[in-house]
Amino acid sequence: MRRNLARLRDRMQALGVTLRPHLKTCKSWDVAQLMLPTPAGPATVSTLKEAEVFAAHGVRDLIYAVGIAPQKLDRVAALRAQGADLAVILDSPEQAEALAARSRALGAPLPALIEIDSDGHRAGVAPANRELLLALARSLAAAHNLRGVLTHAGASYGARTSAELERYAEQERAAAVQAAQAVRAAGHPCPVVSVGSTPTAHFARALDGVTEVRAGVYVFFDLMMANLGVCSLDDIAISVLATVIGHQPAKGWTLTDAGWMALSRDPGDGAYAYGQVCDLALQPIPDLLVTEMSQEHGVLRLRKGSTAPAPQLEVGARVRILPNHACATAAQFDRYYAVDGSLEVTAEWPRFSGF
Amino acid sequence: MRRNLARLRDRMQALGVTLRPHLKTCKSWDVAQLMLPTPAGPATVSTLKEAEVFAAHGVRDLIYAVGIAPQKLDRVAALRAQGADLAVILDSPEQAEALAARSRALGAPLPALIEIDSDGHRAGVAPANRELLLALARSLAAAHNLRGVLTHAGASYGARTSAELERYAEQERAAAVQAAQAVRAAGHPCPVVSVGSTPTAHFARALDGVTEVRAGVYVFFDLMMANLGVCSLDDIAISVLATVIGHQPAKGWTLTDAGWMALSRDPGDGAYAYGQVCDLALQPIPDLLVTEMSQEHGVLRLRKGSTAPAPQLEVGARVRILPNHACATAAQFDRYYAVDGSLEVTAEWPRFSGF
Repeated sequence: MRRNLARLRDRMQALGVTLRPHLKTCKSWDVAQLMLPTPAGPATVSTLKEAEVFAAHGVRDLIYAVGIAPQKLDRVAALRAQGADLAVILDSPEQAEALAARSRALGAPLPALIEIDSDGHRAGVAPANRELLLALARSLAAAHNLRGVLTHAGASYGARTSAELERYAEQERAAAVQAAQAVRAAGHPCPVVSVGSTPTAHFARALDGVTEVRAGVYVFFDLMMANLGVCSLDDIAISVLATVIGHQPAKGWTLTDAGWMALSRDPGDGAYAYGQVCDLALQPIPDLLVTEMSQEHGVLRLRKGSTAPAPQLEVGARVRILPNHACATAAQFDRYYAVDGSLEVTAEWPRFSGF
Repeated sequence: MRRNLARLRDRMQALGVTLRPHLKTCKSWDVAQLMLPTPAGPATVSTLKEAEVFAAHGVRDLIYAVGIAPQKLDRVAALRAQGADLAVILDSPEQAEALAARSRALGAPLPALIEIDSDGHRAGVAPANRELLLALARSLAAAHNLRGVLTHAGASYGARTSAELERYAEQERAAAVQAAQAVRAAGHPCPVVSVGSTPTAHFARALDGVTEVRAGVYVFFDLMMANLGVCSLDDIAISVLATVIGHQPAKGWTLTDAGWMALSRDPGDGAYAYGQVCDLALQPIPDLLVTEMSQEHGVLRLRKGSTAPAPQLEVGARVRILPNHACATAAQFDRYYAVDGSLEVTAEWPRFSGF
């Protein structure tokens, strides 16, 4: 985990941009402290609950990077009144108007970034929709609410080659920078140009015009990131400790007590079924995957067509399972058991859930 | 929820068997109290954490219905020492020997049921494997640990017709009863013959020879159960309240703040994508489904080919989403907001997680 954190920190320093870690993966102050450039931030969050928890720990510079709904502005305003510089994001005139109205009522601006849809993946203003972009910029600037532009290359998770990841990174950069330039050309301020996803953060060759990069899952990485080539299996810093509870020898099944309640139902990209099985020393057991799950059962089987030796795992044996998606698997637990290099537990790090 | 509980309670009474509710779906004492025949049980659990929490609330008659690992016997013994009659399940000689050794060390039996694999779905002794069945019975009986036999028709979730569900129920019943008869014919006691899954519990035509039925998800039901014909959409007693946070009009998308962190990644049977969208009064909006999700975003779209009107849901509008799988969706939350007939929140019911 520390190596993962240092790697992206160094990379961002070399590219001359601020790293604004996304705390949605860890949802833990113990982990966040290791991720954040300073105890006050900057940080990204995906829920107001995260904003509230981390603000209570002293994080001051926060972006809530999911489109704001008007009825959530009470909680935003409350956090700002307590001293957190929490900014929101939006992509519609209705949201900008709600923000302006609330700002007027409060007598204080509620800063927002305009979300840009750099890859057709999810939310945001399409780069071609200059009319909407400038209408939002005008509306926010009039209320002194315009903080900048933000985009997330979520589609990069579907890339297959390094070259594709580099293209996603450049597409993400260009969309954000061009939006910022258009906003500035119309006479509005646009101090923040925020981009990011773990894959693009690791493959961007240049970030000219970008002021900050957001990434979250890089703290732990996972099988999806390994399969994308963003990390190696050895970089994956999170696993689920499971116990063998039985066998179905005729079918080559080893059963464990780690079903989807432990691993999540995240299907990843399919390359490792529901997880890669490792021995207790975290060495992957060749071709041994979690192939089926129910709530509290996992089935371990050799990958189809594998010629690897059948695993010899007796009832009571323990294995460590690398997950498809760290965000989803971590969310199944209320704490991390932090281990040192010898895999001894050195601390319990609580994590929170909720919205 | 109360109607669902009454329906299965009445059905089991009519069939002359004990209902042993499975508390793995609710993981909440507030809900469990409504499910249980008496405050002392009987109850089924899927983790020792559930056993510990419910035993602390006074539940005495418990089956931990996931194959036991030897290192978990400490916690089993501790619960029994505190007065809970907790039984475990197993399907291998290693487990039976570990149980016998621990029983001898404690000077008290640790009761177990032999798990039968009635449908090739997961764990358990194959019905044809009489040799293993009788070896386990002999070993457990010698240590005075033999409580009975247990099976779970997990494959019934894949049924497509009422007739198929009835066949699964009969297959589950027959496998358990025949195993019990073989155990008794060999001169061993077999007081408990335990079967169950929500689908088979609702479709069994007769339960001759069965002493108890286990079921859990029937408390809430979900889209999978509705699609199986076990309940109607109107019976689904759990939903996720979501807020609209944006649109992509060119794609016909409405975005909400309920992604997989709220709904879970359970794919269900595919019939409703990731969920059926309802209005605030819980009336399904025709053909409106959650078709894509990320961590904190859900995309609402009309079912492909639908001629239903496009939804008019403004930013800030709220919807209720029926989930694919109640067990998985409930597990994403730390409490239930209980509502009355007018959908007003009348109580918050905490739920727990962990193992």
